[in-house]
Amino acid sequence: MKIFQGIHPAIVESLRNTALLTDDEISETMSYFERRCIKKKKFILRAGEVSREKIYINKGCFRRYLIDDHDKEVIINFGFEEWWVGDLESFQNHRPSIYYIQAMEDSEVFSINEENLHLLFKAIPKFYDFDNRIIEKSHFAMLKRLAMMQSSSPEEKYLSLLNKYPQILQRIPLYYIASYLGMEPESLSRLRKRLCNKEKKS
Amino acid sequence: MKIFQGIHPAIVESLRNTALLTDDEISETMSYFERRCIKKKKFILRAGEVSREKIYINKGCFRRYLIDDHDKEVIINFGFEEWWVGDLESFQNHRPSIYYIQAMEDSEVFSINEENLHLLFKAIPKFYDFDNRIIEKSHFAMLKRLAMMQSSSPEEKYLSLLNKYPQILQRIPLYYIASYLGMEPESLSRLRKRLCNKEKKS
Repeated sequence: MKIFQGIHPAIVESLRNTALLTDDEISETMSYFERRCIKKKKFILRAGEVSREKIYINKGCFRRYLIDDHDKEVIINFGFEEWWVGDLESFQNHRPSIYYIQAMEDSEVFSINEENLHLLFKAIPKFYDFDNRIIEKSHFAMLKRLAMMQSSSPEEKYLSLLNKYPQILQRIPLYYIASYLGMEPESLSRLRKRLCNKEKKS
Repeated sequence: MKIFQGIHPAIVESLRNTALLTDDEISETMSYFERRCIKKKKFILRAGEVSREKIYINKGCFRRYLIDDHDKEVIINFGFEEWWVGDLESFQNHRPSIYYIQAMEDSEVFSINEENLHLLFKAIPKFYDFDNRIIEKSHFAMLKRLAMMQSSSPEEKYLSLLNKYPQILQRIPLYYIASYLGMEPESLSRLRKRLCNKEKKS
C-alpha cells in the first residue's frame, strides 16, 4: 500500500475504505484539490459571502457559527481533521451564506472549487457516491444532535460531547463549547466543577 | 403535459422541475413504488426494527420521535405530503432504528424497498441525483432548525414554525408541537394565550 506523504492518514483511510478508491484513484482525486494554510483566527467564510469551495481539513480545526437576531454568536459545529468544512448550501445554490467559518488553530486544508469538483465527479464516479454518503452521515449526526438538544440535561450533553470528541477540551476554548451546547459559559463552568467534585468523592 | 391521476401534484412537480424527469420517466419512476394506505395512529417503523423502505408521502402526515433515557417522547420531525419519511440511516446501514414513525392522519404513501431503489437508480440516474439533493435539502433544513433551537426564544420558535407550516395547527395536536419545539405543553399554551392577547390589543 502506497504511503501518501502530507495527507492525514484518516483522509487516506476514508478514501481507501469508504470511497473504495485504489491508490492511483486517491492520487488522481487529490490532484484536483489545492493545499492551503489557514492561520489561526482567519475566516474561510463570512456571512454574506458565497462559498466557492468545498474544504477538507488536513490539519487543525474550525468553528462554524452564525450571529442571531440578538447579536449572539451561535456555534453550529466544529470541524477537525478528515472532516469537510464549509457551507454546502451556499456552495450548491450560489447564495450568500449565513455562517462564519473560522480557524481555531493554524490549519491546513485541501480545497476544491465547483468546476474541479464536477470534473472530479466525472473522472471518478466513486467519489461522487462517497461525497453523497458524507452528506448523509452529517445528516444522521445532526439528527442525533437535535434529539440530544431537545431531550438531554446539560450534564448529559456535556458528557456525550466529551465521549464523542475526547480531544475537544484541549483544542476548543470552553466559551465556544458552552455555545455549542446551548449553555451560558458560567453554567458550563459550574457544571464542570460539580462533575469534578463528584469524581473526587467517588 | 400529462396529468398523473392519484399522485399528489407536489410530487409530480418536484419530479418534473427538480429531478428534471420527462413524463415518461415519471411514469417509469412511479412504477417502482408501491402505493399503500396507512391508518391513523399506525406505525410504519418502531425503534428496534430495521427500516426496509423509503417512503414518499402522497397524503396525510407522520411524526418521527424517539423515547429518551427519561422515557420521554422527543419529536424529531413531522412529515407532510411530498416529503420522504423514514429512518434513512437504518435503511442504508441495515441497523435497528432508534425512531418511531407514526401516521397522524389516515395516510397514503408510495414505498420502495432497497432492491427496487437500486434498480430505479440504475434505470433513471437523474433520480439518484435527485435523491441525493433531497438528503442535502433535509440536512440544510436541519442545520437551520438546530441554530433556531440554540438561539431563539420560545416565542420566536413557535412563530417561525407557524410561518413555515401554516397548516400545522390544523393537523398536529398542540401536545406534539410543544415536544417538537422542546417545550412543555403548558408553556406552549401560555405562550399562545399571550400572543392571542397581544393580537387583540393591537
